Amino acid sequence: MIIYDTNYDFSGERFKVTYQIFERPERAKELARLICVEQTIEFPEEIVGDRIRRFVLGQVEDLQITEESSTVTIAYPVEIVGNDVTQFLNVIMGNCSLFPNVKIIDIQLAESFRTLFTGPRFGVEGLREFLKIENRPLLATAIKPMSLSADQLAEMAYKLALGGIDIIKDDHGLADQPFSHFEERVLKVTKAVQKANRETGFNTVYSPNITSVGPIMLKKAKFVKEIGSGAVLISPALCGFGGMIQVKDEVGLPILSHPAFIGGYLSVMDHRVLLGKLQRVLGADICIFPNYGGRFSFSKQECLKIDQGLKEPFEWLPPALPAPAGGMNIKKVTEMVATYGKDVVLLIGGALHKLGPDLADSVRKFRDETQRACELLFKNA
Amino acid sequence: MIIYDTNYDFSGERFKVTYQIFERPERAKELARLICVEQTIEFPEEIVGDRIRRFVLGQVEDLQITEESSTVTIAYPVEIVGNDVTQFLNVIMGNCSLFPNVKIIDIQLAESFRTLFTGPRFGVEGLREFLKIENRPLLATAIKPMSLSADQLAEMAYKLALGGIDIIKDDHGLADQPFSHFEERVLKVTKAVQKANRETGFNTVYSPNITSVGPIMLKKAKFVKEIGSGAVLISPALCGFGGMIQVKDEVGLPILSHPAFIGGYLSVMDHRVLLGKLQRVLGADICIFPNYGGRFSFSKQECLKIDQGLKEPFEWLPPALPAPAGGMNIKKVTEMVATYGKDVVLLIGGALHKLGPDLADSVRKFRDETQRACELLFKNA
Repeated sequence: MIIYDTNYDFSGERFKVTYQIFERPERAKELARLICVEQTIEFPEEIVGDRIRRFVLGQVEDLQITEESSTVTIAYPVEIVGNDVTQFLNVIMGNCSLFPNVKIIDIQLAESFRTLFTGPRFGVEGLREFLKIENRPLLATAIKPMSLSADQLAEMAYKLALGGIDIIKDDHGLADQPFSHFEERVLKVTKAVQKANRETGFNTVYSPNITSVGPIMLKKAKFVKEIGSGAVLISPALCGFGGMIQVKDEVGLPILSHPAFIGGYLSVMDHRVLLGKLQRVLGADICIFPNYGGRFSFSKQECLKIDQGLKEPFEWLPPALPAPAGGMNIKKVTEMVATYGKDVVLLIGGALHKLGPDLADSVRKFRDETQRACELLFKNA
Repeated sequence: MIIYDTNYDFSGERFKVTYQIFERPERAKELARLICVEQTIEFPEEIVGDRIRRFVLGQVEDLQITEESSTVTIAYPVEIVGNDVTQFLNVIMGNCSLFPNVKIIDIQLAESFRTLFTGPRFGVEGLREFLKIENRPLLATAIKPMSLSADQLAEMAYKLALGGIDIIKDDHGLADQPFSHFEERVLKVTKAVQKANRETGFNTVYSPNITSVGPIMLKKAKFVKEIGSGAVLISPALCGFGGMIQVKDEVGLPILSHPAFIGGYLSVMDHRVLLGKLQRVLGADICIFPNYGGRFSFSKQECLKIDQGLKEPFEWLPPALPAPAGGMNIKKVTEMVATYGKDVVLLIGGALHKLGPDLADSVRKFRDETQRACELLFKNA
């Protein structure tokens, strides 16, 4: 039989991915073996040589079988990633996304990914320094609804900044639409926020939504940097997961990651990986996700898993901040702080507009409520 | 109460998305309404004005309720897409990807998207002309396994081309790795294929895998164009769905779309949309997907839905070719042709290498088998 083999000198260094397989034991064992082949050589094993078997194929490092589901940890050679984030994603979940009932539940990087994945540029500490906020949750809101003009949104942002909100993000649905073009909006809103900051002494930053195809997104990021808005909002599932890293590497601004279009991936990665660890790999400083008890359906346990994935020790990657959102209001502040601690971005959007006619005053209520929650929860701290 | 309203002059033109909702009737009705808000203004409906309600909110055009599942067609204003493919995806499935049990089952474009979405540049007819193949299935294979050198892959490609295969694609796992760097591989394989073409008179084309983050992918596409390989392979879920359109618009090469990393989206879009209609929107000329009866788990019915989505009349978008794959071999040729007709790309990878020691001869067997299948199935045609 024809035998193909590699003559490349592999280092032997490997990174690891843990999959949960929701199949009966026999099929789970078979799938563990199939994934080793599928995610690497995708070729009949019986006609490849010893070096490929030894250095290229995925290796099962650990296999735990139970009747309901099994977990397998597979080690892949670092060389097959070729220093490319899209190929990294391809190795961990490319074809095997097409196997039903297989989910990534953990990722461990390898030393030689240190230059490829430098992680959040700011992280929790860097963000606190950047925003000059020492020991309390960060407060955020969004300008919306879409269809308002740049002037209307700027006026709204001005009032929100007057009240002393920390971060004003674009609604993730604001793009470059005829009712509010990107550059006009960014200019006007940034100026309005800066004017309020001069008047109040606060340090509100504005985070425009730059999500788009690669080169346009990069151009938008550079514009935001030049104008001095402060941060950027990116939906990585919309622009491609690699796009966020590129903005991070080329433009030094805090990145808020938005979960639009990411829901499908929950069938192939668990909450802790998809909205936690992976977000840090891809360079998010803040990860927005739907909090429990809001408009979406995540459970408290799933949200805590996300929080864990954003903050737990993970190789050399700094922790990032969770931003639980999606139908929050100030009545939920105490519970949010109790759940996530002080290292959290409290993001209240539409509900802030229902608190009263004066947006600045509504932000003050939001700040007061947060302070009360902290005093209540951390009175002995 | 504060009322926000738009002063923009909306055209009234709308495009439509049909969702299937797997919930009980009451919740399905509620979700239909929620989607109209979530995918547009994402803001409390009670504090927006009449113009936003009339021109910006999604509108339920049709709602069919049954006990098990319901379908709703929602019409969205074209202006909110802002001429951006990522924002188009955001409108149709952004936040609502986070609602469990909601799936897109149809998309209808609007006239004003004609310049944004020009569809497959070649399509079925264009590809047949480009490849000089009139009235039979196209035959394709892949060079692999990863870890072979550019020289080894070039030798393999030479033999495959000698046998008269129509398309040789990179394995989708070949990127820019140390064992076979992208440019070296593309150069050597292209030359090998061209040498074989000169010797045989065949017209084999080579389709390197260019999947990467935006700017790198575009650079790779331009390199492939310059070298004259013939086509490109892109995994849109890995590079971001918008990345494929950009290559299509800026570099005029046939595009093969690969399903790596796309599996998760099957929980939010059905097969016909995700691997059929959407692929045409995004500019694929050939869509590779896992055929039934192979290593993956698609059913015959799901595969036929993909075929339908690639070929059915769909506004101004030309049809694209299905490439059922994933564990195919020549014994399955007749059934594949019977299932998909002559407008199909028969893609056999690893199994071709197990047919015998001479790859050129194995390709000849593949061609003969295809011819036999066509004679058998279309003898009266």
